[in-house]
Amino acid sequence: MQKIPTKIYLNETEMPKYWYNVRADMKEKHAPMLNPGTLQPVKKEEMYPLFCKELVEQEFNETDRLIEIPEEVREFYKMYRPSPLVRAYWLEKALGTPAEIYYKHEGNNTSGSHKLNSAIAQAYYAKKQGITHLTTETGAGQWGTALSMASAFFGLKLDVYMVKISSEQKPYRKAVMETYGANVIPSPSDTTEVGKAILAKNPKTGGSLGCAISEAVEVAVKSDNTRYVLGSVLDYVLLHQSVIGQEAKTALDKYGVKPDIIIGCAGGGSNLGGLIAPFMGEKLRGEKDYRIIAVEPASCPSLTRGKYAYDFGDTGHMTPLMKMYTLGSNFMPSANHAGGLRYHGMSAILSKLYDDKMMEAVAVEQTAVFEAAELFARVEGILPAPESSHAIRVAINEALKCKETGEKKVILFGLTGTGYFDLAAYTQYNNKTMTDCIPTDADLQKGFDGLPKIN
Amino acid sequence: MQKIPTKIYLNETEMPKYWYNVRADMKEKHAPMLNPGTLQPVKKEEMYPLFCKELVEQEFNETDRLIEIPEEVREFYKMYRPSPLVRAYWLEKALGTPAEIYYKHEGNNTSGSHKLNSAIAQAYYAKKQGITHLTTETGAGQWGTALSMASAFFGLKLDVYMVKISSEQKPYRKAVMETYGANVIPSPSDTTEVGKAILAKNPKTGGSLGCAISEAVEVAVKSDNTRYVLGSVLDYVLLHQSVIGQEAKTALDKYGVKPDIIIGCAGGGSNLGGLIAPFMGEKLRGEKDYRIIAVEPASCPSLTRGKYAYDFGDTGHMTPLMKMYTLGSNFMPSANHAGGLRYHGMSAILSKLYDDKMMEAVAVEQTAVFEAAELFARVEGILPAPESSHAIRVAINEALKCKETGEKKVILFGLTGTGYFDLAAYTQYNNKTMTDCIPTDADLQKGFDGLPKIN
Repeated sequence: MQKIPTKIYLNETEMPKYWYNVRADMKEKHAPMLNPGTLQPVKKEEMYPLFCKELVEQEFNETDRLIEIPEEVREFYKMYRPSPLVRAYWLEKALGTPAEIYYKHEGNNTSGSHKLNSAIAQAYYAKKQGITHLTTETGAGQWGTALSMASAFFGLKLDVYMVKISSEQKPYRKAVMETYGANVIPSPSDTTEVGKAILAKNPKTGGSLGCAISEAVEVAVKSDNTRYVLGSVLDYVLLHQSVIGQEAKTALDKYGVKPDIIIGCAGGGSNLGGLIAPFMGEKLRGEKDYRIIAVEPASCPSLTRGKYAYDFGDTGHMTPLMKMYTLGSNFMPSANHAGGLRYHGMSAILSKLYDDKMMEAVAVEQTAVFEAAELFARVEGILPAPESSHAIRVAINEALKCKETGEKKVILFGLTGTGYFDLAAYTQYNNKTMTDCIPTDADLQKGFDGLPKIN
Repeated sequence: MQKIPTKIYLNETEMPKYWYNVRADMKEKHAPMLNPGTLQPVKKEEMYPLFCKELVEQEFNETDRLIEIPEEVREFYKMYRPSPLVRAYWLEKALGTPAEIYYKHEGNNTSGSHKLNSAIAQAYYAKKQGITHLTTETGAGQWGTALSMASAFFGLKLDVYMVKISSEQKPYRKAVMETYGANVIPSPSDTTEVGKAILAKNPKTGGSLGCAISEAVEVAVKSDNTRYVLGSVLDYVLLHQSVIGQEAKTALDKYGVKPDIIIGCAGGGSNLGGLIAPFMGEKLRGEKDYRIIAVEPASCPSLTRGKYAYDFGDTGHMTPLMKMYTLGSNFMPSANHAGGLRYHGMSAILSKLYDDKMMEAVAVEQTAVFEAAELFARVEGILPAPESSHAIRVAINEALKCKETGEKKVILFGLTGTGYFDLAAYTQYNNKTMTDCIPTDADLQKGFDGLPKIN
């Protein structure tokens, strides 16, 4: 058999032409979104003022297994895709494991993460619909960067409401977005009613993601040619991210490799949902079996310690209710540097698959995550994002189990991004000032107390 | 003919097994290094205490056209090489030029630049010789990061003397190096005699690259198992960097493409020397012709306004004398964000080739460089390093000339790295507070006045 190269690159002609919609293969679909006022299922029409029409169609599409990737989006994908599938020979050697480890590296683009896969699709549909102006929020800045790149490409005006404290702590993230022409507004701001109200009450607040969402939404719904854009959680975002898993599967298939275990970090679920999509499809159709593991931070354990219940998607309670694993929308995770994994809930699709026992979940502590990140950086030559390092931690754990048992399992994990903008966290780890922050049951109960009473 | 993909990746089996030594094809070699005390050519033996033996052999090798890349180095290269050769379809479209533009992207590794190509080779030879400890200096931090990665890989102890003001302004660069286990010492420090002397005279100094070199050299020569490592200028560094040009040429040859113009930024010359190596070989052997253009900042114009003379390689006057284009070792360029291009001199090989009219040089101003960088970032999706953006500027200029004349020239340029750690400069550009800093003739004369009197 042909030796497997360190990096498997597909040809451009092998890149997927369709996104894969895992819901088409789910015998039982997840519960519908509800209008929090009427408690009735949300209608498409209710979402049009906020989201682009084509995205709403995708959000409601439970039947089409394959949805064509527009040619313009496929052309943009060629800038940074296909992304490499890497055989982690050096990591295997360092661990002394008989396991084979592969990772799909989504960090090789200027946004530094997989977020660009959906950002460009959403910008495309906006452009196609005649929308000229997008709004969004960003916390750590990866999503905002991805959408800035996408908006610049299609010539769309973009307002990014960036949590004020983040915009001060991460001026360089702001600089990248501005280089791509985005208007970065520290939130709360005086550009919206909700922002003004918050500032009037608390002029010195550092802001929050909930507040930034509210500002972005307010601007979007006020204007016909403006729409709001979201980078995770929603079904259509997972749909776009299925390019990750499809490329990974095509690359593995080329070499006749079938993974036994597939591992991804899970915040809102976009990366994990994308990585596992075609594998989960085979599992749902009963064709093949895979162990699929979601990894979340012990500081924000929505799958492993949350409740499966209807909850708001945001802290400001402006979104529809979604049935998902949640810690409650007012749960505040303690300081944790994996900003992308601090979401209180989880994708409705992934929540349903987890509830149906189609996948497992595990929570890991931050210092253990950075220990894995440092090892990975040194032997594989890539400085991983803290988010991605959650998956690395569990991949290493599984590989070490193989070392004990002598099993030669094949492990695939998602390397969602690079850590160039997370060096404050690495510095803490290097200085040994990093701590683990695990919520007590009482902390969690406070979050659960805030769940809507309909559950 | 096959359509050329956006990114051309070679297979691992197509990666070069040999470095190409351009000196073997130069009919007239550059003048030898001189011992500044005796003014006699430096002997190999004089260099052994400071540099690894194998590297000294390479530095003196003027006859072997091909030098084998050790297998261990080739294995490491597979982590991040072959690097993509990108057809800049989007940039061509944005410019409306009939020219074809290609770039070799060396930024897709955690060190963020091409520096890793030589760092890993130098660490390998040190390990092979039984050296356990390396020292080096770093200014902006790209070289220090690359050597940290290489040293971690071969288990070598590394001291990086980092210009104190840089270590304060770029704490994140320091964090990356520390994650790779390097000992980062702000220079001047109290770990060396030269450092202590400077601190005694000027306790509040922010340091300089010259001082950092002197500290790193002092530590290396004092111990048998320690060697000093350098990331540019020297002939053996250009040799290692020839992988860039060889991969680029192999990729272009696969599609039957011959570049008319080859463009690279030039600081010490390692990137440019590496990119052009095999093309220059053909030109020297009279097989093919290429226009080759070195691009330097107008703030530090060693080729376009310097003298071809013997000069010290460092400001501390500890190195041998090298015949090169130089602004004088005490020339201080004004503030310029392309830290990697602020060297007063130029590789002896490139200086000789330039003096022999085998290549051209052009100096560009900083604001024009950032204008090109921003356009490139927006249309090609990669945030370029300021250094690399000098090459982008001239590639765009040449493509625009083609637009005027209607000529369909093929342009190849080197994208040496990414700009993630240069965002203070991008912020200045975005804020319109960036200025151009062109030295007057009187400024240059001061530098020339400091040249050794032997010229």
